[in-house]
Amino acid sequence: MDTICKLAAYGKKIGSDIRFVGVPKTIDNDLMVTDHTPGFGSAAKFVATTMKELICDARIYQLKSVVIVEVMGRDSGWLTASAALAKGEDCEGVDLIYLPEVPFTMENFFADIQERLKEKDSLVIAISEGIKLPDGRYVCELSAGNQKEDAFGHKQLTGTALFLASECAKQLKIKARAIELSTLQRCASHIASATDIQEAYGVGGAAVQAALDGKSGVGITLVRVADHPYRWDTGMVEIDKMANYAKTVPLAWINDTHNGLRDEFIAYARPLIEGELPPYYVNGLPQHLRLEK
Amino acid sequence: MDTICKLAAYGKKIGSDIRFVGVPKTIDNDLMVTDHTPGFGSAAKFVATTMKELICDARIYQLKSVVIVEVMGRDSGWLTASAALAKGEDCEGVDLIYLPEVPFTMENFFADIQERLKEKDSLVIAISEGIKLPDGRYVCELSAGNQKEDAFGHKQLTGTALFLASECAKQLKIKARAIELSTLQRCASHIASATDIQEAYGVGGAAVQAALDGKSGVGITLVRVADHPYRWDTGMVEIDKMANYAKTVPLAWINDTHNGLRDEFIAYARPLIEGELPPYYVNGLPQHLRLEK
Repeated sequence: MDTICKLAAYGKKIGSDIRFVGVPKTIDNDLMVTDHTPGFGSAAKFVATTMKELICDARIYQLKSVVIVEVMGRDSGWLTASAALAKGEDCEGVDLIYLPEVPFTMENFFADIQERLKEKDSLVIAISEGIKLPDGRYVCELSAGNQKEDAFGHKQLTGTALFLASECAKQLKIKARAIELSTLQRCASHIASATDIQEAYGVGGAAVQAALDGKSGVGITLVRVADHPYRWDTGMVEIDKMANYAKTVPLAWINDTHNGLRDEFIAYARPLIEGELPPYYVNGLPQHLRLEK
Repeated sequence: MDTICKLAAYGKKIGSDIRFVGVPKTIDNDLMVTDHTPGFGSAAKFVATTMKELICDARIYQLKSVVIVEVMGRDSGWLTASAALAKGEDCEGVDLIYLPEVPFTMENFFADIQERLKEKDSLVIAISEGIKLPDGRYVCELSAGNQKEDAFGHKQLTGTALFLASECAKQLKIKARAIELSTLQRCASHIASATDIQEAYGVGGAAVQAALDGKSGVGITLVRVADHPYRWDTGMVEIDKMANYAKTVPLAWINDTHNGLRDEFIAYARPLIEGELPPYYVNGLPQHLRLEK
């Protein structure tokens, strides 16, 4: 969105007739102004579906154990929070959820686990790759040899679950497994949310219409019209309102103990994962459309 | 199957009228006599579907890079081999596949990658967690601090992809990502193979019938009746024929360069992933049946 902002300003300055319109898309859901972003609903559906399956898998073991699932999200915990959607009449849900929006301490983490293990044997825990200590360091920085930076100078956050699982095994003497959802969570198109796909077409269409109408330097938003039944529309704002700020999960939606989500989050996220768009299967596998030659 | 074998022998010895019948099930597909095992088809469908999605994800990057995907399979590479099913008219397929059936060397691995990187930028590689060096050590044993054993005294094989990705980054100076499919590959019921589910009911039914018929110390098998169209039936064998030996991928189905599968494997595995059994979705997520209270 920042790039669109700069391009639109430059286009205006040199009198170009090219129109620049921002179309939101990110599984991270961390864009300002828009109610949510295309991609998030499908990624959240994959995360919640996978959590339900991992809970079934973990439930059969009588050994005291934890499965720690690392979900993408550097500074915002939207996708990790979607693990909370797993809970339902057929599933007791994820036991603990930790987001980067609130400080994380090893002391509270261990205390939370020990408390839960009094009631049940196997826990499934969701953590964001970007969870941070009270001093602002990423938790994965506690792990030796894990201070790499990527090409943009961002600290590489991989290994948070691996570190925490290793600490659980060492300190709590329990079986601990780390699972990184890795890039699967952003490309699992076989379990896309139909709502998400419809909205993706919606913002794309609205952006083309805006350009045809002569707009430039604007961004398309998704607007929530109603919750029950869920209805949405597209909106349009000046692009500078969407650029350069990340939207995080409201603190009021995180529980007091900083290890779970309140019903407000569920009410927000549930409609976004609803509806299925089953792939077209050929020879047993989803067929993908390829636009290139 | 070994447990059934022992129980049936003991039951016979003490004159018990309890009947012991072995019902095959393992995603590893490493059971003798039976053409394949329930569970394998669905896990293979998940692996191949995920590979196709990861290939789409990787294709957009122009940087020289490898994604190394670790698949379960300690001594048999059936599930890793199923990555070969990803190839089709819409997908160029996984670039390299390494199985535990043939020796693995870092030299060949690097040479294979460098060869492929001459033609394309981003590679997706499937490796079995159990790939072994010519001297019989697991590849993951090359990684420092990775010599843990589980409760059964089995070496823990986790970390093979992580180790190989780290070596690719260091030695080949390319971007490298490790992905472990971890327990997702054994519990992704949302993308089950309908063929697999039907066969699972089939062997269960045949086992109950065998017990009703007074059989004990036998195991149910899946028999391939025809390939085109695929047809199957159940069979029955003395349980000792199924116990204690692991079935590996035939060497004749692995290519000469030990980094891919021949058409014979595709012909064997394709029918097993065919057919879909879409879950029943409630509130956007697959609903699971729970048998306990």
